[in-house]
Amino acid sequence: MLNSFLKGILERLNAGEVVIGDGGFVFALEKRGYVKAGPWTPEANVTHPEAVRQLHREFLRAGANVMQTFTFYASDDKLENRGNDLQLTGRQINEAACDIAREVANEGDALVAGGVSQTPSYLSCKSESEVKAIFKKQLDVFVQKDVDFLIAEYFEHVEEAEWAVQVLQTTGKPVAACLCIGPEGDLNGVSPGDCAVRLVKAGAEIVGINCHFDPMTCVKAVKLMKEGVERAGLKAHYMVQPLAYHTPDCNCQGFIDLPEFPFALEPRILTRWDMHKYAREAYNTGIRYIGGCCGFEAYHIRALAEELAPERGLMPSGSEKHGMWGSGLEMHTKPWVRARSRREYWEKLQPASGRPSCASLSVPDGWGVTKGHADLIQHKEATSVHEIQQLLEIQKKAKVST
Amino acid sequence: MLNSFLKGILERLNAGEVVIGDGGFVFALEKRGYVKAGPWTPEANVTHPEAVRQLHREFLRAGANVMQTFTFYASDDKLENRGNDLQLTGRQINEAACDIAREVANEGDALVAGGVSQTPSYLSCKSESEVKAIFKKQLDVFVQKDVDFLIAEYFEHVEEAEWAVQVLQTTGKPVAACLCIGPEGDLNGVSPGDCAVRLVKAGAEIVGINCHFDPMTCVKAVKLMKEGVERAGLKAHYMVQPLAYHTPDCNCQGFIDLPEFPFALEPRILTRWDMHKYAREAYNTGIRYIGGCCGFEAYHIRALAEELAPERGLMPSGSEKHGMWGSGLEMHTKPWVRARSRREYWEKLQPASGRPSCASLSVPDGWGVTKGHADLIQHKEATSVHEIQQLLEIQKKAKVST
Amino acid sequence: MLNSFLKGILERLNAGEVVIGDGGFVFALEKRGYVKAGPWTPEANVTHPEAVRQLHREFLRAGANVMQTFTFYASDDKLENRGNDLQLTGRQINEAACDIAREVANEGDALVAGGVSQTPSYLSCKSESEVKAIFKKQLDVFVQKDVDFLIAEYFEHVEEAEWAVQVLQTTGKPVAACLCIGPEGDLNGVSPGDCAVRLVKAGAEIVGINCHFDPMTCVKAVKLMKEGVERAGLKAHYMVQPLAYHTPDCNCQGFIDLPEFPFALEPRILTRWDMHKYAREAYNTGIRYIGGCCGFEAYHIRALAEELAPERGLMPSGSEKHGMWGSGLEMHTKPWVRARSRREYWEKLQPASGRPSCASLSVPDGWGVTKGHADLIQHKEATSVHEIQQLLEIQKKAKVST
Amino acid sequence: MLNSFLKGILERLNAGEVVIGDGGFVFALEKRGYVKAGPWTPEANVTHPEAVRQLHREFLRAGANVMQTFTFYASDDKLENRGNDLQLTGRQINEAACDIAREVANEGDALVAGGVSQTPSYLSCKSESEVKAIFKKQLDVFVQKDVDFLIAEYFEHVEEAEWAVQVLQTTGKPVAACLCIGPEGDLNGVSPGDCAVRLVKAGAEIVGINCHFDPMTCVKAVKLMKEGVERAGLKAHYMVQPLAYHTPDCNCQGFIDLPEFPFALEPRILTRWDMHKYAREAYNTGIRYIGGCCGFEAYHIRALAEELAPERGLMPSGSEKHGMWGSGLEMHTKPWVRARSRREYWEKLQPASGRPSCASLSVPDGWGVTKGHADLIQHKEATSVHEIQQLLEIQKKAKVST
Repeated sequence: MLNSFLKGILERLNAGEVVIGDGGFVFALEKRGYVKAGPWTPEANVTHPEAVRQLHREFLRAGANVMQTFTFYASDDKLENRGNDLQLTGRQINEAACDIAREVANEGDALVAGGVSQTPSYLSCKSESEVKAIFKKQLDVFVQKDVDFLIAEYFEHVEEAEWAVQVLQTTGKPVAACLCIGPEGDLNGVSPGDCAVRLVKAGAEIVGINCHFDPMTCVKAVKLMKEGVERAGLKAHYMVQPLAYHTPDCNCQGFIDLPEFPFALEPRILTRWDMHKYAREAYNTGIRYIGGCCGFEAYHIRALAEELAPERGLMPSGSEKHGMWGSGLEMHTKPWVRARSRREYWEKLQPASGRPSCASLSVPDGWGVTKGHADLIQHKEATSVHEIQQLLEIQKKAKVST
Repeated sequence: MLNSFLKGILERLNAGEVVIGDGGFVFALEKRGYVKAGPWTPEANVTHPEAVRQLHREFLRAGANVMQTFTFYASDDKLENRGNDLQLTGRQINEAACDIAREVANEGDALVAGGVSQTPSYLSCKSESEVKAIFKKQLDVFVQKDVDFLIAEYFEHVEEAEWAVQVLQTTGKPVAACLCIGPEGDLNGVSPGDCAVRLVKAGAEIVGINCHFDPMTCVKAVKLMKEGVERAGLKAHYMVQPLAYHTPDCNCQGFIDLPEFPFALEPRILTRWDMHKYAREAYNTGIRYIGGCCGFEAYHIRALAEELAPERGLMPSGSEKHGMWGSGLEMHTKPWVRARSRREYWEKLQPASGRPSCASLSVPDGWGVTKGHADLIQHKEATSVHEIQQLLEIQKKAKVST
Repeated sequence: MLNSFLKGILERLNAGEVVIGDGGFVFALEKRGYVKAGPWTPEANVTHPEAVRQLHREFLRAGANVMQTFTFYASDDKLENRGNDLQLTGRQINEAACDIAREVANEGDALVAGGVSQTPSYLSCKSESEVKAIFKKQLDVFVQKDVDFLIAEYFEHVEEAEWAVQVLQTTGKPVAACLCIGPEGDLNGVSPGDCAVRLVKAGAEIVGINCHFDPMTCVKAVKLMKEGVERAGLKAHYMVQPLAYHTPDCNCQGFIDLPEFPFALEPRILTRWDMHKYAREAYNTGIRYIGGCCGFEAYHIRALAEELAPERGLMPSGSEKHGMWGSGLEMHTKPWVRARSRREYWEKLQPASGRPSCASLSVPDGWGVTKGHADLIQHKEATSVHEIQQLLEIQKKAKVST
Repeated sequence: MLNSFLKGILERLNAGEVVIGDGGFVFALEKRGYVKAGPWTPEANVTHPEAVRQLHREFLRAGANVMQTFTFYASDDKLENRGNDLQLTGRQINEAACDIAREVANEGDALVAGGVSQTPSYLSCKSESEVKAIFKKQLDVFVQKDVDFLIAEYFEHVEEAEWAVQVLQTTGKPVAACLCIGPEGDLNGVSPGDCAVRLVKAGAEIVGINCHFDPMTCVKAVKLMKEGVERAGLKAHYMVQPLAYHTPDCNCQGFIDLPEFPFALEPRILTRWDMHKYAREAYNTGIRYIGGCCGFEAYHIRALAEELAPERGLMPSGSEKHGMWGSGLEMHTKPWVRARSRREYWEKLQPASGRPSCASLSVPDGWGVTKGHADLIQHKEATSVHEIQQLLEIQKKAKVST
């Protein structure tokens, strides 16, 4: 339950405060050894709670005001599809996730947000009531555990997000809704502005973008959402939780389609200085809930909190271990490294890749298939060798026709 | 104390086993918010033991057979120089570090190694007896806490490393010694082969390289060490614990001199697939103690353990969350991502940087100053604005004369 | 006068033939030492006719069907502004240019085209009648020398191009009109489609794009022109004469604004294989007059002619010294070079820059000033040191505000 | 015959003058349509003398003091191997080349140099007397046409170069000898220093490097030659005529082995500003005969002459069309382009490639075969499809084993 001394999410945003979100759990815990890339499911809440708790603590210390429950893809239809050997139910996982998030949130000034995201059932063309039933099942846990607010996030189709919002808002808790789309709109081509209007009408108090694109691209898409909402004479708060990867070469489906996804994205990771620019741009665009998604680690979140420290009137506790703009280097052994303890140095630096055999941009895959396409019906089985062969053939043709 | 069921480091190496080292604590904990870049000192053992413990656990789970105590730069001469506000002593920090390392080592098949590294006193031209007294003071804790073996690492001058080995070997525990040099030799130009011979003669049973350069460069330097030792008719075991950053543009002082050090190294981070190549190359070179240093996270260590699984006869426990060569992607939602679940795909991929405004290589700083140079005498005070101005002047001239 | 055996430009285009244009004279002759970058004026027609004649011959041999008179910027208002030490008049220069073009055209199957381009007077807000008088003066020479058709090219503002077309079409000779704009339209934001409609209505039989952008960008802009003309129920022929430089990072003012312009564009030069792709794309878009502008050398034009040899039914005479798709390498000394004598090899090759310290993309200057802005009023004097200082200040601000 | 007012090559070098060489004919004329890549033979002297003459004139105007006869690969054994459809003899071609070179040299302050280069016969293991007979045959023309001095250039094996020098020096004319090797030495591993000593002992008054590597690499190799000659107590003059391509990724066989050779080298072309650095570095190294080879165009040669104008006391005539360090831009229309009319601007600029899908460096082919290897025996026939298949197989293996 919400610490009575703490203000809720809407109170904060209504008061014009900046809310710092947390970073991505799936990618961070994959690197730490607790999440499997491919299924991406959050059994670690049950099997390795100390690892999940530690990551929450890092984000809290970095300045995050929200602890999102680590419940990504924890719907039963996803769990049974994706190699969940332990036969854990969505309920078990989600309960554990809520408990951990609340425990850490209570160690600081943070709210707990329960999250739902897009379902295999929707892509496989299940009906509205079937899809809504899946959200309802996840929601029951969040209500029982009394999270502070709800986030429907990572939706590629605004329709499914609307359904999720409609289910979530029945609880009376504040509802935020994020699509994982870019400025070109959702996978059916609905513009960010129109998407935002539909989400607000469905009951979302906060709308925005998460995942799939780099920070500046996401901010641009949220800007279009804001313009759409304002044009429609509606009101909303805005949030953004982008990737911590540079993705200038993405098409509309985002970083999934980059050849480097998900195991060779390293050269694209944003520096803390990139994060300063992102935080400032998001703030200037009128976004007040500013966080991160895949690729964000604690130091990225801390950079957001440090950039917006003047507006927020406080520094994150993690900054005790970080000099602003590299000032800690004043105590480095080597004098030429001490000479780097300056804002101007880091702001201007264009970091080299150390990879002279690599290009700057990739050609993304681009199949252009979306909801309802036979290729996207979920299997329970892993892909067979024969299927891989077929995929390579299709892919080859797709590249040639580009 | 060493679990009596476990074999010691020399037993393992003598038996021809592959020993997987752990990764770097300083950089990983800096990103997580527990270490300050610049001082780089390990007070977190005392202030945030759960964070240090969690990182140990991740490396253990990734397959590491050694838990190095997180005691980098924990000598009193460094601590008093570098903004240690809490007035913690080296003893307090090192005791806590030993306890944490032992606790986690006992959860698996791992040894505890106590480590010492180069001292400000040496660079400031203190005498042999003064420098040795500093090592002795650190060593007392390691003896009292009964670590399993000792590592003298991160030395730029072979002379100081010899002194460290001479102190460490008085304990009767196995001694490993690593320089942070490349194929060109130490900062006085002593070749890797000659360095290795001197370290072996000083009493080191294991010699090698850590930090400062990327994996392939370090392996090349260890190869030169091995050739030197063999040429001298001596015997040793070999270890390597490189950076997880690509550094083709480094000069002899390593990544410290890169303009990106330490806050913009992201584009240089190695992928897990780069680590496979490194592990294989190290193994083929005859190195049997293979680990990592700055930049290594758990998934990098796991990649080493996975590449050498055939030789080691086991997979790390963390591989329950990782399909070999991306096979977990067989369960990804999108078919074109499933098509990436193949070794050939990841082995051949040249990952793009997503940064078309950045170059591939940087021009490193290169002052060429070393031990005893006035510029390197340690201050207790942070660098003043005036000093920064002077540094920029010197640097400008250094770049021009290149 | 037109060789009576030759078909005129409209006869060819009406018959569906592909007309190959020539390449750029200004940049090629600058490299050869006969044109001064900055003024860019064509006094060489008078002072070094053999150099101009030789370049014409190279383009003819490469397959060009048009010899454009080398009369770029040869208007008296430009000549007096730009350091014309010899006091040559526009008339003298233009007469010599016509004679040389005709001499070489008569050596093969080529037409002579007289060209006019944008004037300093327009940018300085001179009146329509003043600007038209300048075109008329140039035109008198072309009429007297009986060129085969006329090209108004290199206009950034459609209005000035309309004025030029209105003057040129009074001669009864076929008139082509090219803007140097990209898909975003002219400097006042008039779309390519609308520009094309206005040019056709002004009397141009052929419309298109030349200079300022790379081939694929120019083809895209001509495509928009074509769509605009067709939407308006009009008819025209289409031409394109792009740069031979890759310019993905340009803004609306084209390559002038790239930091590399004009003395460091080398890494951007297209290969002959890039030209094959351009020729095919232009053809598929419905463009039938396909040539080049700055950066094009004879081998680039030959590549266009070779790619379209099946459609044209003939190879250029220069192909006697060029095996299709590198087949001449079958006679190279080294066998591994012989292995490159294949279309697949060159089509797929992504050529390295050999410049690991350089980025892929630049940030263009972008002042956004255009016709009538005080900064663009032409001086007769060279820029003073004081003015350069002012420029640097303005530029600094412009970069910061980006 | 040498104009009696002109000083010979040795007089100039003995007097400490800087001699500017000319640029490369083969690549320049290939682009202009007069040389076929693969055979690379110079029939154009006979078939298109005006094209050869024009290129000579451009180099003369750019400041070149030497007109090298365009006689590369014009030995009968090469001509009969390489698709010489016109059945021109080496004698016919070489006579024409001499006449053209003399005609243009007499238009300015230039000497004529006759050149011989490595023979297919040597690679095919013909005897010393057979190879020398080939040189003798070429030489007869040079003697008859009374060239001013002789250059033996483009030798990969010092032995063959020695044979050439021994033949050439029988004429009593000054002899220069250039290898196409890098700092690692000739293809048999003979160091540059040892190569130079052997060439001087064979009778060469001038020794150096041409072709195969970029300017800075060639200067470095000549430096090693100079050190070798001085160490041996001998005396010589030094020359360098490098590529105008950046080749940091070459192995010992030079740019032939780059995947981009010869049809996709464009991104590697040096700018005029790169040439300033090269000229200064060559001069500072003690080299006084400074010119260019493949890739050099007139503006590259002019940049050499402009950089060394203070030492030479004169500017090339071509500089009437070139402001030093871009000063001609003071007269550009756009003010932000006028702001580029400064040395500092161009010296610091790191030009972007405009190719974000391309890497910075390539992996060169590396077969490591050399003189006498069966793969290198010259065929008269072009490579068959079957041979190409075999080559691709061999190449695949070569790449894998790297």
